[in-house]
Amino acid sequence: MIIVGELINSTRKKVKEAMEKNDEEYIKNLAIKQDKAGSDFIDVNAGAFVFDEVKKLEWAINIIQEVTKKPLAIDSPRPEALELGLKMHKNGKPLINSITKESERWKKVLPLALEYDSYILGLCIDDNGIPEDADTRFKIASSIINDLVKEGKKIEDIAIDPITNPLSVNTTYGLVLLDTVKRIKKEFPEVKVIAGLSNISYGLPARKQINRAFMVMAMTYGMDGALIDPLDPIMISLIKATEALLNKDPYCANYLKAYREGTVVKT
Amino acid sequence: MIIVGELINSTRKKVKEAMEKNDEEYIKNLAIKQDKAGSDFIDVNAGAFVFDEVKKLEWAINIIQEVTKKPLAIDSPRPEALELGLKMHKNGKPLINSITKESERWKKVLPLALEYDSYILGLCIDDNGIPEDADTRFKIASSIINDLVKEGKKIEDIAIDPITNPLSVNTTYGLVLLDTVKRIKKEFPEVKVIAGLSNISYGLPARKQINRAFMVMAMTYGMDGALIDPLDPIMISLIKATEALLNKDPYCANYLKAYREGTVVKT
Repeated sequence: MIIVGELINSTRKKVKEAMEKNDEEYIKNLAIKQDKAGSDFIDVNAGAFVFDEVKKLEWAINIIQEVTKKPLAIDSPRPEALELGLKMHKNGKPLINSITKESERWKKVLPLALEYDSYILGLCIDDNGIPEDADTRFKIASSIINDLVKEGKKIEDIAIDPITNPLSVNTTYGLVLLDTVKRIKKEFPEVKVIAGLSNISYGLPARKQINRAFMVMAMTYGMDGALIDPLDPIMISLIKATEALLNKDPYCANYLKAYREGTVVKT
Repeated sequence: MIIVGELINSTRKKVKEAMEKNDEEYIKNLAIKQDKAGSDFIDVNAGAFVFDEVKKLEWAINIIQEVTKKPLAIDSPRPEALELGLKMHKNGKPLINSITKESERWKKVLPLALEYDSYILGLCIDDNGIPEDADTRFKIASSIINDLVKEGKKIEDIAIDPITNPLSVNTTYGLVLLDTVKRIKKEFPEVKVIAGLSNISYGLPARKQINRAFMVMAMTYGMDGALIDPLDPIMISLIKATEALLNKDPYCANYLKAYREGTVVKT
Protein backbone atom coordinates (compact mmCIF):
# COMPACT_ATOMS: atom_id res chain seq x y z
CA MET A 1 0.00 0.00 0.00
CA ILE A 2 1.09 3.48 -0.90
CA ILE A 3 0.30 5.67 2.09
CA VAL A 4 0.00 9.40 1.53
CA GLY A 5 -0.02 11.16 4.91
CA GLU A 6 -2.84 13.66 4.66
CA LEU A 7 -2.43 15.68 7.85
CA ILE A 8 -0.55 18.77 6.62
CA ASN A 9 -3.65 20.22 5.05
CA SER A 10 -4.66 23.82 5.62
CA THR A 11 -8.35 22.94 5.62
CA ARG A 12 -7.64 21.39 9.03
CA LYS A 13 -8.07 24.12 11.63
CA LYS A 14 -4.88 23.57 13.61
CA VAL A 15 -2.75 23.34 10.50
CA LYS A 16 -4.20 26.57 9.18
CA GLU A 17 -3.44 28.30 12.47
CA ALA A 18 0.11 26.97 12.43
CA MET A 19 0.60 28.20 8.88
CA GLU A 20 -0.83 31.60 9.79
CA LYS A 21 1.56 31.96 12.73
CA ASN A 22 4.52 30.41 10.89
CA ASP A 23 4.62 27.78 13.63
CA GLU A 24 7.48 25.66 12.30
CA GLU A 25 7.45 23.22 15.20
CA TYR A 26 3.88 22.16 14.64
CA ILE A 27 4.27 21.50 10.93
CA LYS A 28 7.66 19.82 11.26
CA ASN A 29 6.33 17.59 13.99
CA LEU A 30 3.43 16.46 11.80
CA ALA A 31 5.88 15.70 8.99
CA ILE A 32 8.19 13.69 11.26
CA LYS A 33 5.36 11.72 12.81
CA GLN A 34 3.79 10.86 9.48
CA ASP A 35 7.17 9.84 8.09
CA LYS A 36 7.83 7.55 11.05
CA ALA A 37 4.34 6.03 10.87
CA GLY A 38 5.18 4.73 7.40
CA SER A 39 3.92 7.34 4.92
CA ASP A 40 5.32 6.95 1.42
CA PHE A 41 4.44 10.55 0.56
CA ILE A 42 3.72 13.57 2.76
CA ASP A 43 0.87 15.64 1.39
CA VAL A 44 1.24 19.44 1.65
CA ASN A 45 -1.74 21.69 1.10
CA ALA A 46 -1.99 25.44 1.71
CA GLY A 47 -5.13 25.94 -0.34
CA ALA A 48 -7.09 27.54 2.49
CA PHE A 49 -4.99 30.68 1.97
CA VAL A 50 -6.79 32.19 -0.97
CA PHE A 51 -4.44 35.11 -1.48
CA ASP A 52 -1.07 33.79 -0.40
CA GLU A 53 -1.29 30.05 -1.02
CA VAL A 54 1.98 30.06 -2.95
CA LYS A 55 3.87 31.87 -0.19
CA LYS A 56 2.49 29.57 2.51
CA LEU A 57 3.21 26.48 0.46
CA GLU A 58 6.78 27.62 -0.10
CA TRP A 59 7.26 28.15 3.62
CA ALA A 60 5.78 24.73 4.45
CA ILE A 61 7.71 22.75 1.85
CA ASN A 62 10.95 24.34 2.97
CA ILE A 63 10.60 23.36 6.59
CA ILE A 64 9.13 19.93 5.85
CA GLN A 65 12.10 19.06 3.66
CA GLU A 66 14.39 19.91 6.57
CA VAL A 67 12.95 17.04 8.62
CA THR A 68 11.94 14.29 6.21
CA LYS A 69 13.44 12.61 3.16
CA LYS A 70 10.05 11.34 2.03
CA PRO A 71 8.78 12.71 -1.28
CA LEU A 72 5.88 15.13 -1.12
CA ALA A 73 2.43 15.14 -2.59
CA ILE A 74 2.02 18.73 -3.73
CA ASP A 75 -1.63 19.39 -3.20
CA SER A 76 -3.30 22.26 -5.00
CA PRO A 77 -5.72 22.93 -7.85
CA ARG A 78 -3.54 25.92 -8.87
CA PRO A 79 -0.85 25.45 -11.48
CA GLU A 80 1.36 28.19 -10.00
CA ALA A 81 1.35 26.49 -6.59
CA LEU A 82 2.09 23.09 -8.15
CA GLU A 83 4.93 24.54 -10.20
CA LEU A 84 6.54 26.18 -7.20
CA GLY A 85 6.33 22.89 -5.30
CA LEU A 86 7.84 20.91 -8.17
CA LYS A 87 10.71 23.38 -8.46
CA MET A 88 11.47 23.25 -4.76
CA HIS A 89 11.13 19.48 -4.45
CA LYS A 90 14.33 17.75 -3.28
CA ASN A 91 13.79 14.16 -2.16
CA GLY A 92 12.73 11.49 -4.60
CA LYS A 93 9.90 11.80 -7.07
CA PRO A 94 6.98 14.03 -6.09
CA LEU A 95 3.29 13.37 -6.62
CA ILE A 96 1.30 16.11 -8.34
CA ASN A 97 -2.02 16.24 -6.49
CA SER A 98 -3.81 16.78 -8.83
CA ILE A 99 -5.07 17.08 -12.37
CA THR A 100 -8.69 16.73 -13.51
CA LYS A 101 -10.54 16.74 -16.82
CA GLU A 102 -11.88 20.23 -16.20
CA SER A 103 -10.74 21.97 -19.39
CA GLU A 104 -8.88 24.88 -17.79
CA ARG A 105 -7.15 22.77 -15.15
CA TRP A 106 -6.16 20.10 -17.63
CA LYS A 107 -4.63 22.65 -19.96
CA LYS A 108 -2.58 24.31 -17.23
CA VAL A 109 -1.48 21.31 -15.17
CA LEU A 110 -0.62 19.01 -18.09
CA PRO A 111 2.59 20.88 -19.05
CA LEU A 112 3.86 20.54 -15.47
CA ALA A 113 3.20 16.81 -15.46
CA LEU A 114 5.20 16.51 -18.68
CA GLU A 115 8.04 18.84 -17.73
CA TYR A 116 8.81 17.44 -14.29
CA ASP A 117 9.74 13.85 -13.49
CA SER A 118 6.79 13.23 -11.21
CA TYR A 119 3.85 11.03 -10.44
CA ILE A 120 0.53 12.57 -11.33
CA LEU A 121 -2.78 11.97 -9.58
CA GLY A 122 -5.86 12.41 -11.76
CA LEU A 123 -9.23 13.01 -10.12
CA CYS A 124 -12.41 11.67 -11.74
CA ILE A 125 -13.86 15.13 -12.31
CA ASP A 126 -14.65 16.93 -15.58
CA ASP A 127 -16.49 20.08 -16.57
CA ASN A 128 -19.71 18.52 -15.32
CA GLY A 129 -18.31 18.08 -11.82
CA ILE A 130 -18.08 14.84 -9.86
CA PRO A 131 -20.18 12.12 -11.48
CA GLU A 132 -22.71 10.26 -9.35
CA ASP A 133 -22.05 6.87 -10.92
CA ALA A 134 -19.10 4.53 -11.38
CA ASP A 135 -19.62 4.37 -15.12
CA THR A 136 -18.97 8.06 -15.74
CA ARG A 137 -16.11 8.08 -13.23
CA PHE A 138 -14.49 5.23 -15.09
CA LYS A 139 -14.90 7.08 -18.38
CA ILE A 140 -13.16 10.16 -16.98
CA ALA A 141 -10.38 7.98 -15.55
CA SER A 142 -9.89 6.34 -18.95
CA SER A 143 -9.77 9.69 -20.65
CA ILE A 144 -7.18 11.06 -18.18
CA ILE A 145 -5.00 7.96 -18.52
CA ASN A 146 -5.21 7.69 -22.31
CA ASP A 147 -4.58 11.39 -22.84
CA LEU A 148 -1.64 11.52 -20.42
CA VAL A 149 -0.05 8.54 -22.15
CA LYS A 150 -0.70 10.08 -25.56
CA GLU A 151 1.09 13.25 -24.39
CA GLY A 152 4.10 11.21 -23.32
CA LYS A 153 3.61 10.50 -19.59
CA LYS A 154 4.65 6.98 -18.60
CA ILE A 155 1.67 4.89 -17.55
CA GLU A 156 3.41 3.74 -14.36
CA ASP A 157 3.67 7.37 -13.25
CA ILE A 158 -0.10 7.83 -13.42
CA ALA A 159 -2.46 7.42 -10.48
CA ILE A 160 -6.21 7.91 -10.31
CA ASP A 161 -8.38 9.05 -7.43
CA PRO A 162 -11.96 7.80 -8.02
CA ILE A 163 -13.29 10.47 -5.56
CA THR A 164 -14.95 9.61 -2.29
CA ASN A 165 -18.30 11.16 -1.42
CA PRO A 166 -19.80 11.02 2.07
CA LEU A 167 -21.93 8.03 3.03
CA SER A 168 -24.04 10.40 5.12
CA VAL A 169 -25.24 12.04 1.90
CA ASN A 170 -25.99 8.81 0.05
CA THR A 171 -25.49 5.26 1.33
CA THR A 172 -24.57 4.01 -2.14
CA TYR A 173 -21.39 6.13 -2.30
CA GLY A 174 -19.24 3.43 -0.70
CA LEU A 175 -20.22 0.94 -3.40
CA VAL A 176 -19.74 3.55 -6.15
CA LEU A 177 -16.13 3.99 -5.07
CA LEU A 178 -15.48 0.26 -4.83
CA ASP A 179 -16.96 -0.36 -8.24
CA THR A 180 -14.87 2.42 -9.80
CA VAL A 181 -11.68 1.05 -8.23
CA LYS A 182 -12.41 -2.41 -9.60
CA ARG A 183 -13.07 -1.19 -13.13
CA ILE A 184 -9.98 0.99 -13.31
CA LYS A 185 -7.71 -1.81 -12.04
CA LYS A 186 -9.25 -4.27 -14.46
CA GLU A 187 -8.76 -2.05 -17.49
CA PHE A 188 -5.48 -0.38 -16.47
CA PRO A 189 -3.55 -2.70 -14.14
CA GLU A 190 -0.36 -0.59 -14.38
CA VAL A 191 -2.12 2.55 -13.17
CA LYS A 192 -2.19 3.07 -9.41
CA VAL A 193 -5.51 3.80 -7.76
CA ILE A 194 -4.88 6.17 -4.86
CA ALA A 195 -8.00 7.44 -3.13
CA GLY A 196 -8.65 10.14 -0.60
CA LEU A 197 -10.80 7.95 1.59
CA SER A 198 -11.52 9.98 4.71
CA ASN A 199 -14.35 11.92 3.12
CA ILE A 200 -16.49 8.76 3.25
CA SER A 201 -17.18 9.31 6.96
CA TYR A 202 -17.95 13.03 6.78
CA GLY A 203 -21.04 13.82 8.84
CA LEU A 204 -21.03 10.52 10.75
CA PRO A 205 -19.84 9.82 14.30
CA ALA A 206 -16.89 7.56 15.14
CA ARG A 207 -15.35 8.44 11.79
CA LYS A 208 -12.27 6.31 12.41
CA GLN A 209 -14.29 3.11 12.30
CA ILE A 210 -15.87 3.98 8.95
CA ASN A 211 -12.48 5.00 7.54
CA ARG A 212 -10.82 1.79 8.73
CA ALA A 213 -13.51 -0.49 7.36
CA PHE A 214 -13.58 1.39 4.06
CA MET A 215 -9.81 1.10 3.71
CA VAL A 216 -9.95 -2.69 4.08
CA MET A 217 -12.84 -2.91 1.63
CA ALA A 218 -11.15 -0.73 -1.01
CA MET A 219 -7.91 -2.70 -0.68
CA THR A 220 -9.93 -5.86 -1.23
CA TYR A 221 -11.19 -4.29 -4.46
CA GLY A 222 -7.65 -3.60 -5.64
CA MET A 223 -6.88 -0.08 -4.44
CA ASP A 224 -3.11 0.58 -4.39
CA GLY A 225 -2.86 3.54 -2.07
CA ALA A 226 -4.74 6.13 -0.07
CA LEU A 227 -4.55 9.55 1.48
CA ILE A 228 -5.11 8.86 5.15
CA ASP A 229 -4.23 9.83 8.68
CA PRO A 230 -1.25 7.53 9.21
CA LEU A 231 -1.17 8.33 12.93
CA ASP A 232 -4.03 5.92 13.65
CA PRO A 233 -2.10 2.78 14.64
CA ILE A 234 -5.15 0.56 14.21
CA MET A 235 -5.56 1.82 10.64
CA ILE A 236 -1.93 0.98 9.89
CA SER A 237 -2.30 -2.42 11.58
CA LEU A 238 -5.37 -3.21 9.50
CA ILE A 239 -3.56 -2.20 6.29
CA LYS A 240 -0.69 -4.58 7.08
CA ALA A 241 -3.13 -7.34 8.02
CA THR A 242 -5.12 -6.83 4.83
CA GLU A 243 -2.00 -7.02 2.66
CA ALA A 244 -1.18 -10.37 4.27
CA LEU A 245 -4.75 -11.61 3.88
CA LEU A 246 -4.73 -10.66 0.18
CA ASN A 247 -1.62 -12.84 -0.23
CA LYS A 248 0.51 -9.80 -1.04
CA ASP A 249 2.94 -10.38 1.82
CA PRO A 250 4.94 -13.60 1.36
CA TYR A 251 5.32 -15.50 4.67
CA CYS A 252 3.57 -12.53 6.33
CA ALA A 253 7.10 -11.12 6.56
CA ASN A 254 6.08 -7.45 6.41
CA TYR A 255 3.32 -8.00 8.92
CA LEU A 256 5.70 -9.67 11.34
CA LYS A 257 8.33 -6.97 10.82
CA ALA A 258 5.79 -4.23 11.41
CA TYR A 259 4.68 -6.00 14.58
CA ARG A 260 8.25 -6.20 15.87
CA GLU A 261 8.76 -2.51 15.09
CA GLY A 262 5.55 -1.55 16.86
CA THR A 263 3.70 -0.36 13.76
CA VAL A 264 1.22 -3.21 14.04
CA VAL A 265 -0.32 -2.95 17.49
CA LYS A 266 -1.97 -5.59 19.63
CA THR A 267 -5.23 -3.95 20.66
CA MET B 1 -24.61 -9.66 10.35
CA ILE B 2 -25.40 -12.71 12.38
CA ILE B 3 -22.98 -12.72 15.31
CA VAL B 4 -22.34 -16.01 17.08
CA GLY B 5 -20.49 -15.31 20.33
CA GLU B 6 -17.72 -17.89 20.42
CA LEU B 7 -16.29 -17.43 23.91
CA ILE B 8 -17.97 -20.27 25.84
CA ASN B 9 -15.73 -22.88 24.29
CA SER B 10 -13.98 -25.48 26.39
CA THR B 11 -10.91 -25.41 24.18
CA ARG B 12 -10.23 -22.01 25.79
CA LYS B 13 -8.21 -22.61 28.95
CA LYS B 14 -10.21 -20.44 31.34
CA VAL B 15 -13.51 -21.82 30.14
CA LYS B 16 -12.29 -25.35 30.58
CA GLU B 17 -11.18 -24.58 34.13
CA ALA B 18 -14.53 -22.97 34.91
CA MET B 19 -16.35 -26.02 33.56
CA GLU B 20 -14.12 -28.33 35.58
CA LYS B 21 -14.82 -26.44 38.80
CA ASN B 22 -18.49 -25.86 38.00
CA ASP B 23 -17.79 -22.12 38.22
CA GLU B 24 -21.27 -20.82 37.38
CA GLU B 25 -20.32 -17.16 37.76
CA TYR B 26 -17.62 -17.27 35.12
CA ILE B 27 -19.77 -18.96 32.48
CA LYS B 28 -22.86 -16.90 33.23
CA ASN B 29 -20.84 -13.73 33.04
CA LEU B 30 -19.49 -14.67 29.60
CA ALA B 31 -23.04 -15.37 28.44
CA ILE B 32 -24.38 -12.05 29.75
CA LYS B 33 -21.52 -10.04 28.27
CA GLN B 34 -21.81 -11.67 24.85
CA ASP B 35 -25.57 -11.17 24.87
CA LYS B 36 -25.17 -7.47 25.71
CA ALA B 37 -22.47 -6.99 23.08
CA GLY B 38 -24.99 -7.93 20.40
CA SER B 39 -24.57 -11.68 19.82
CA ASP B 40 -27.46 -13.28 17.95
CA PHE B 41 -26.48 -16.75 19.17
CA ILE B 42 -24.34 -17.86 22.10
CA ASP B 43 -22.12 -20.80 21.17
CA VAL B 44 -21.69 -23.52 23.82
CA ASN B 45 -18.94 -26.10 23.47
CA ALA B 46 -17.82 -28.67 26.03
CA GLY B 47 -15.91 -30.82 23.58
CA ALA B 48 -12.64 -30.65 25.50
CA PHE B 49 -14.20 -33.06 28.03
CA VAL B 50 -13.70 -36.32 26.22
CA PHE B 51 -15.51 -38.50 28.73
CA ASP B 52 -18.16 -36.26 30.16
CA GLU B 53 -18.90 -33.79 27.38
CA VAL B 54 -22.63 -34.44 27.61
CA LYS B 55 -22.71 -33.83 31.35
CA LYS B 56 -20.67 -30.64 31.11
CA LEU B 57 -22.75 -29.37 28.22
CA GLU B 58 -25.95 -30.00 30.17
CA TRP B 59 -24.58 -28.06 33.13
CA ALA B 60 -23.48 -25.16 30.93
CA ILE B 61 -26.69 -24.90 28.91
CA ASN B 62 -28.74 -24.92 32.08
CA ILE B 63 -26.95 -22.00 33.68
CA ILE B 64 -26.58 -20.04 30.45
CA GLN B 65 -30.33 -20.20 29.85
CA GLU B 66 -30.86 -18.72 33.30
CA VAL B 67 -29.17 -15.47 32.24
CA THR B 68 -29.84 -14.97 28.54
CA LYS B 69 -32.81 -15.28 26.22
CA LYS B 70 -30.59 -15.53 23.16
CA PRO B 71 -30.74 -18.82 21.25
CA LEU B 72 -27.72 -21.09 21.51
CA ALA B 73 -25.37 -22.57 18.98
CA ILE B 74 -24.93 -26.11 20.25
CA ASP B 75 -21.38 -26.90 19.32
CA SER B 76 -20.25 -30.51 19.13
CA PRO B 77 -19.32 -33.16 16.60
CA ARG B 78 -21.18 -35.74 18.73
CA PRO B 79 -24.81 -36.53 17.97
CA GLU B 80 -25.60 -37.36 21.61
CA ALA B 81 -24.33 -33.97 22.78
CA LEU B 82 -26.26 -32.17 20.04
CA GLU B 83 -29.43 -34.06 20.88
CA LEU B 84 -29.20 -33.23 24.55
CA GLY B 85 -28.70 -29.56 23.69
CA LEU B 86 -31.66 -29.53 21.32
CA LYS B 87 -33.91 -31.16 23.93
CA MET B 88 -32.91 -28.67 26.61
CA HIS B 89 -33.11 -25.62 24.38
CA LYS B 90 -35.64 -23.05 25.55
CA ASN B 91 -35.27 -19.65 23.86
CA GLY B 92 -35.91 -19.25 20.15
CA LYS B 93 -34.50 -21.46 17.46
CA PRO B 94 -31.12 -23.09 18.12
CA LEU B 95 -28.25 -23.51 15.68
CA ILE B 96 -26.83 -27.00 15.32
CA ASN B 97 -23.06 -26.54 15.10
CA SER B 98 -22.45 -28.67 13.09
CA ILE B 99 -22.92 -31.27 10.40
CA THR B 100 -20.33 -32.29 7.78
CA LYS B 101 -20.22 -34.62 4.79
CA GLU B 102 -18.18 -37.18 6.71
CA SER B 103 -20.35 -40.27 6.21
CA GLU B 104 -20.76 -41.23 9.87
CA ARG B 105 -21.40 -37.71 11.09
CA TRP B 106 -23.84 -36.97 8.30
CA LYS B 107 -25.84 -40.12 9.03
CA LYS B 108 -26.09 -39.39 12.74
CA VAL B 109 -26.63 -35.63 12.78
CA LEU B 110 -29.09 -35.49 9.87
CA PRO B 111 -32.02 -36.98 11.83
CA LEU B 112 -31.55 -34.33 14.54
CA ALA B 113 -31.61 -31.53 11.99
CA LEU B 114 -34.87 -32.94 10.62
CA GLU B 115 -36.54 -33.70 13.95
CA TYR B 116 -35.86 -30.39 15.68
CA ASP B 117 -36.93 -26.97 14.47
CA SER B 118 -33.42 -25.59 14.21
CA TYR B 119 -30.88 -23.91 12.03
CA ILE B 120 -28.10 -26.22 10.88
CA LEU B 121 -24.52 -25.22 10.15
CA GLY B 122 -22.73 -27.39 7.59
CA LEU B 123 -18.93 -27.41 7.48
CA CYS B 124 -17.13 -27.92 4.18
CA ILE B 125 -15.54 -31.19 5.24
CA ASP B 126 -16.03 -34.69 3.85
CA ASP B 127 -14.36 -38.06 4.27
CA ASN B 128 -11.23 -36.63 2.67
CA GLY B 129 -10.93 -33.92 5.32
CA ILE B 130 -10.79 -30.16 4.74
CA PRO B 131 -10.14 -29.40 1.06
CA GLU B 132 -7.28 -27.08 0.17
CA ASP B 133 -9.14 -25.29 -2.62
CA ALA B 134 -12.31 -23.24 -2.99
CA ASP B 135 -13.59 -25.49 -5.75
CA THR B 136 -13.83 -28.63 -3.62
CA ARG B 137 -15.17 -26.66 -0.67
CA PHE B 138 -17.91 -25.29 -2.87
CA LYS B 139 -18.76 -28.80 -4.08
CA ILE B 140 -19.11 -30.05 -0.51
CA ALA B 141 -21.25 -27.02 0.38
CA SER B 142 -23.51 -27.73 -2.61
CA SER B 143 -23.83 -31.35 -1.63
CA ILE B 144 -24.73 -30.47 1.98
CA ILE B 145 -27.31 -27.91 0.88
CA ASN B 146 -28.89 -30.04 -1.85
CA ASP B 147 -29.08 -33.14 0.33
CA LEU B 148 -30.51 -31.27 3.32
CA VAL B 149 -33.19 -29.73 1.13
CA LYS B 150 -33.94 -33.12 -0.45
CA GLU B 151 -34.42 -34.57 3.04
CA GLY B 152 -36.92 -31.84 3.88
CA LYS B 153 -34.91 -29.12 5.65
CA LYS B 154 -35.95 -25.60 4.65
CA ILE B 155 -33.24 -23.83 2.69
CA GLU B 156 -33.48 -20.71 4.85
CA ASP B 157 -32.61 -22.83 7.89
CA ILE B 158 -29.31 -23.90 6.34
CA ALA B 159 -25.97 -22.19 6.94
CA ILE B 160 -22.53 -23.09 5.63
CA ASP B 161 -19.13 -22.58 7.23
CA PRO B 162 -16.49 -22.58 4.46
CA ILE B 163 -13.75 -23.38 7.06
CA THR B 164 -10.97 -20.99 7.91
CA ASN B 165 -7.37 -22.23 7.88
CA PRO B 166 -4.51 -20.24 9.39
CA LEU B 167 -2.72 -17.70 7.23
CA SER B 168 0.49 -18.62 9.06
CA VAL B 169 0.35 -22.04 7.41
CA ASN B 170 -0.38 -20.79 3.91
CA THR B 171 -0.84 -17.18 2.81
CA THR B 172 -3.45 -18.17 0.21
CA TYR B 173 -5.93 -19.38 2.85
CA GLY B 174 -7.53 -15.94 3.21
CA LEU B 175 -8.32 -15.82 -0.50
CA VAL B 176 -9.55 -19.43 -0.47
CA LEU B 177 -12.13 -18.51 2.14
CA LEU B 178 -13.23 -15.35 0.33
CA ASP B 179 -13.59 -17.19 -2.94
CA THR B 180 -15.65 -19.95 -1.31
CA VAL B 181 -17.96 -17.40 0.33
CA LYS B 182 -18.54 -15.67 -2.99
CA ARG B 183 -19.35 -18.87 -4.85
CA ILE B 184 -21.76 -20.16 -2.23
CA LYS B 185 -23.64 -16.84 -2.06
CA LYS B 186 -23.82 -16.65 -5.84
CA GLU B 187 -25.25 -20.15 -6.24
CA PHE B 188 -27.36 -20.28 -3.06
CA PRO B 189 -28.37 -16.74 -2.08
CA GLU B 190 -30.92 -17.98 0.49
CA VAL B 191 -28.31 -19.98 2.39
CA LYS B 192 -26.45 -18.11 5.11
CA VAL B 193 -22.68 -18.23 5.12
CA ILE B 194 -21.51 -18.20 8.74
CA ALA B 195 -17.79 -18.66 9.21
CA GLY B 196 -15.62 -19.33 12.22
CA LEU B 197 -13.11 -16.65 11.32
CA SER B 198 -10.72 -16.47 14.25
CA ASN B 199 -8.65 -19.41 13.12
CA ILE B 200 -7.25 -17.24 10.30
CA SER B 201 -4.86 -15.52 12.73
CA TYR B 202 -3.65 -18.64 14.52
CA GLY B 203 0.12 -18.52 14.94
CA LEU B 204 0.44 -14.79 14.16
CA PRO B 205 0.88 -11.89 16.59
CA ALA B 206 -1.70 -9.12 17.11
CA ARG B 207 -4.42 -11.60 16.18
CA LYS B 208 -7.19 -9.05 16.68
CA GLN B 209 -6.00 -6.98 13.73
CA ILE B 210 -6.01 -9.95 11.37
CA ASN B 211 -9.42 -11.03 12.62
CA ARG B 212 -10.88 -7.54 12.20
CA ALA B 213 -9.54 -7.04 8.69
CA PHE B 214 -10.66 -10.52 7.65
CA MET B 215 -14.15 -9.87 8.97
CA VAL B 216 -14.51 -6.74 6.84
CA MET B 217 -13.14 -8.55 3.79
CA ALA B 218 -15.44 -11.55 4.18
CA MET B 219 -18.47 -9.28 4.67
CA THR B 220 -17.48 -7.50 1.46
CA TYR B 221 -17.59 -10.90 -0.25
CA GLY B 222 -21.11 -11.56 1.03
CA MET B 223 -20.62 -13.43 4.30
CA ASP B 224 -23.79 -13.29 6.44
CA GLY B 225 -22.46 -14.12 9.87
CA ALA B 226 -19.47 -15.23 11.90
CA LEU B 227 -18.37 -16.91 15.07
CA ILE B 228 -16.33 -14.24 16.79
CA ASP B 229 -15.33 -12.69 20.09
CA PRO B 230 -18.09 -10.08 20.37
CA LEU B 231 -16.33 -8.44 23.31
CA ASP B 232 -13.91 -6.61 21.01
CA PRO B 233 -15.68 -3.24 20.61
CA ILE B 234 -13.57 -2.30 17.59
CA MET B 235 -14.63 -5.51 15.85
CA ILE B 236 -18.29 -4.71 16.51
CA SER B 237 -17.76 -1.11 15.36
CA LEU B 238 -16.15 -2.28 12.12
CA ILE B 239 -19.02 -4.71 11.48
CA LYS B 240 -21.58 -1.91 11.86
CA ALA B 241 -19.47 0.40 9.67
CA THR B 242 -19.09 -2.28 7.00
CA GLU B 243 -22.84 -2.91 6.90
CA ALA B 244 -23.39 0.80 6.27
CA LEU B 245 -20.65 0.93 3.63
CA LEU B 246 -22.20 -2.06 1.83
CA ASN B 247 -25.47 -0.09 1.64
CA LYS B 248 -27.20 -2.59 3.94
CA ASP B 249 -28.11 0.03 6.54
CA PRO B 250 -30.61 2.58 5.19
CA TYR B 251 -29.74 6.12 6.37
CA CYS B 252 -26.95 4.54 8.47
CA ALA B 253 -29.71 4.17 11.06
CA ASN B 254 -28.29 1.06 12.74
CA TYR B 255 -24.81 2.53 12.78
CA LEU B 256 -26.07 5.71 14.43
CA LYS B 257 -28.17 3.77 16.93
CA ALA B 258 -25.21 1.55 17.82
CA TYR B 259 -23.09 4.66 18.31
CA ARG B 260 -25.66 6.21 20.65
CA GLU B 261 -25.87 2.97 22.62
CA GLY B 262 -22.09 2.76 22.90
CA THR B 263 -21.68 -0.38 20.77
CA VAL B 264 -19.86 1.59 18.09
CA VAL B 265 -16.90 3.22 19.80
CA LYS B 266 -14.92 6.29 18.82
CA THR B 267 -11.32 5.11 19.02
